[in-house]
Amino acid sequence: MKLERAEILCVGTEILIGDIINTNAAWLSKELSSLGISQYHQAVIGDNSQRLAETVSDTLKNCDLLVITGGLGPTYDDITKETVAKVLNKNLVFDEDVYYDIKDFFRKRERKMTENNRKQAYIIEGAHILKNDMGTAPGLLCETGEKIVVLLPGPPSELMPMWTNYVKPQIQKYCDKIFVSKNVNIVGIGEAAVADVLDEMMKNAVNPTIAPYCKTGETRLRVTASAKTKEEAAAMCDEVIEEIKKTKIGEYIYGIDTDLAEAVVKELTKRGLKIATAESCTGGLIAKMITDVPGSSAVLEGGMVAYSNSVKYRALNVSSSLLDRHGPYDHKVAVQMAEGICRLMDADVGIGVTGIAGPGGGTREKPVGFVYIAVAYNKKSSVMKYKFGEKQSRDRIRELTAANAFINVLEMLKNQK
Amino acid sequence: MKLERAEILCVGTEILIGDIINTNAAWLSKELSSLGISQYHQAVIGDNSQRLAETVSDTLKNCDLLVITGGLGPTYDDITKETVAKVLNKNLVFDEDVYYDIKDFFRKRERKMTENNRKQAYIIEGAHILKNDMGTAPGLLCETGEKIVVLLPGPPSELMPMWTNYVKPQIQKYCDKIFVSKNVNIVGIGEAAVADVLDEMMKNAVNPTIAPYCKTGETRLRVTASAKTKEEAAAMCDEVIEEIKKTKIGEYIYGIDTDLAEAVVKELTKRGLKIATAESCTGGLIAKMITDVPGSSAVLEGGMVAYSNSVKYRALNVSSSLLDRHGPYDHKVAVQMAEGICRLMDADVGIGVTGIAGPGGGTREKPVGFVYIAVAYNKKSSVMKYKFGEKQSRDRIRELTAANAFINVLEMLKNQK
Repeated sequence: MKLERAEILCVGTEILIGDIINTNAAWLSKELSSLGISQYHQAVIGDNSQRLAETVSDTLKNCDLLVITGGLGPTYDDITKETVAKVLNKNLVFDEDVYYDIKDFFRKRERKMTENNRKQAYIIEGAHILKNDMGTAPGLLCETGEKIVVLLPGPPSELMPMWTNYVKPQIQKYCDKIFVSKNVNIVGIGEAAVADVLDEMMKNAVNPTIAPYCKTGETRLRVTASAKTKEEAAAMCDEVIEEIKKTKIGEYIYGIDTDLAEAVVKELTKRGLKIATAESCTGGLIAKMITDVPGSSAVLEGGMVAYSNSVKYRALNVSSSLLDRHGPYDHKVAVQMAEGICRLMDADVGIGVTGIAGPGGGTREKPVGFVYIAVAYNKKSSVMKYKFGEKQSRDRIRELTAANAFINVLEMLKNQK
Repeated sequence: MKLERAEILCVGTEILIGDIINTNAAWLSKELSSLGISQYHQAVIGDNSQRLAETVSDTLKNCDLLVITGGLGPTYDDITKETVAKVLNKNLVFDEDVYYDIKDFFRKRERKMTENNRKQAYIIEGAHILKNDMGTAPGLLCETGEKIVVLLPGPPSELMPMWTNYVKPQIQKYCDKIFVSKNVNIVGIGEAAVADVLDEMMKNAVNPTIAPYCKTGETRLRVTASAKTKEEAAAMCDEVIEEIKKTKIGEYIYGIDTDLAEAVVKELTKRGLKIATAESCTGGLIAKMITDVPGSSAVLEGGMVAYSNSVKYRALNVSSSLLDRHGPYDHKVAVQMAEGICRLMDADVGIGVTGIAGPGGGTREKPVGFVYIAVAYNKKSSVMKYKFGEKQSRDRIRELTAANAFINVLEMLKNQK
């Protein structure tokens, strides 16, 4: 058996009515790509047995691997197992071991098991049972002729470990190529300019391929290689990345397979420096993004959301006459915030951010999207003015501000090494 | 013409390989539901002309309204317009007005227009042009027999305003029912118990329908009514909500169509109180969620991410001997953080959070997911201990902590009214 083409079929009326964003499909797509299994098409279908049966049977004709998510729960509208059994011409059989695991799940959590959970102990005859370490519904892997059908539970917290621990190891043997992608992280030069410099190289790239794309505040190049082994594919990527580093793009590369917050944590760790943040319009996003990085506790002293003028003055020692004269959206306020948080938290590097994330609060002179970002380090402070655009959403303005704060910290550290 | 059934078709290889999460489908699904247009099925397809043509022509047979997103860009792999034109047997024609708008878009932004943007000025013969206020690719609305095909650009920031401002007003006249949903927000009682109390009521509900579901830290009931007008449907929902309030569930309802952070901001605003947060393991998430609520600046003094012990001691005045003896994951530390931030920021209500979000840092006695949440108000402080579970992800533990912090603030305010 050889798995070359897959289809993902997500079952659930809650997806069709927009109550749930289908993150499973994106996650599984990435996993399939990494195994060299391609997809032409993906579908979402409601909790309707007849339509599901038709779709399963049609879809099976066009793929080697069918991954179905959702509809394994205990209630009457969970119909995936029953429907797939029918399409494959198999019976559902009660499995004592699965039943024991379900009972055990409830016992360990000191929760009462309801009668309808018993339904989850029925499995498709002959299928491999995929253990659910995070919930009650087991998954199933059915081999049928030259094809494989995998049934996974809908909640991502159950689906992801089940795929990683029990499905991937079983299907890997049927894949003869492994795909590895590496991202080259670039700041200070736009996607179009990157594409321009690497035009020739990108056009001639077959394996690995090179593709540029945009991320908030930065440009990325995705280098993707396929080979027999992961190691071989990774080495092929590295070789191309070395070539890229030799071009004009080289000086703009700040990392490989990283992101701005991670790069900041890494640089600070390397230098043994501590950082602290004073945020107004970003409302703590910058600190949150730093704490998202594992190991950040070694470099983050802490952060402050200084929303009101009185907190800027009381806790950060921003000059009250400055606040009175110029209001909070001022470059000196940003600098004093960055310096104030350094003092308060005894940090080496301070970030100070003040501006207007909208939707309200803009003026003609200082419209929505108007932001000052200051960085204090080693008794020097720098401050930059940004206009992210009045039509941008509040979230987007905050993301752009955070990205640029990290860029400015990296820049500051680079210049003072 | 009457629009009853829709299909959403999202075009883009970047979705199939998992680079992009398909948020457009969820957003459009909600919009369609609100117009009483149902969906049985949704699909994603790559940038391949032949497969796209087949899918468009098949899909059109099963619906009255086909909404296609993506593939309207300027590059060679943007093929939606050409392909749909072919399926509908129409020509592409160059539109001078659209071309002017595109040129204008670049002129206003002082950016250079490239030759391939000219491609975006071609439209399907006879189609209504949907203005793109946020980008260069116009959308198209084609009426063909008794069906409508809508082409929208892929970026959500362009798609959403285009749908709201130009598509919805045009198709509304073909919909004879409007759907309105209202959410009843409940804390302190689980989904199963809610379903148990309302069993009879839910079973007998036809229009409006009542459906329970879980959200982080809370239970929700979605009440959905359909009627000729929005006002009528809304009134029908309100009537059912009044009935629900009279049941045992009533005392657990904290709001309608709100969320925990919003409810906290509302309660604080009503009482004229200011809040401040001192967060360790949540890394600023609580402050961020408060600042996400429009109007929160009136109640949020500010917040602090007090990650290191030295910041807890220096900035929040947490007892250093307490930190030395018990470490940071201690109920007294949480209380002193809540009280310290109140003092520092001159706030009325303080939240103090300390715990272990993981993945590392857990011990047998205090495993990952172990969190203390303290609330200080009016010279009283309360503190609660939580064990959110060792297997939960870092993000999930933080979300649960934030939700419970808000629940505790609401509880504290309720008890002191």
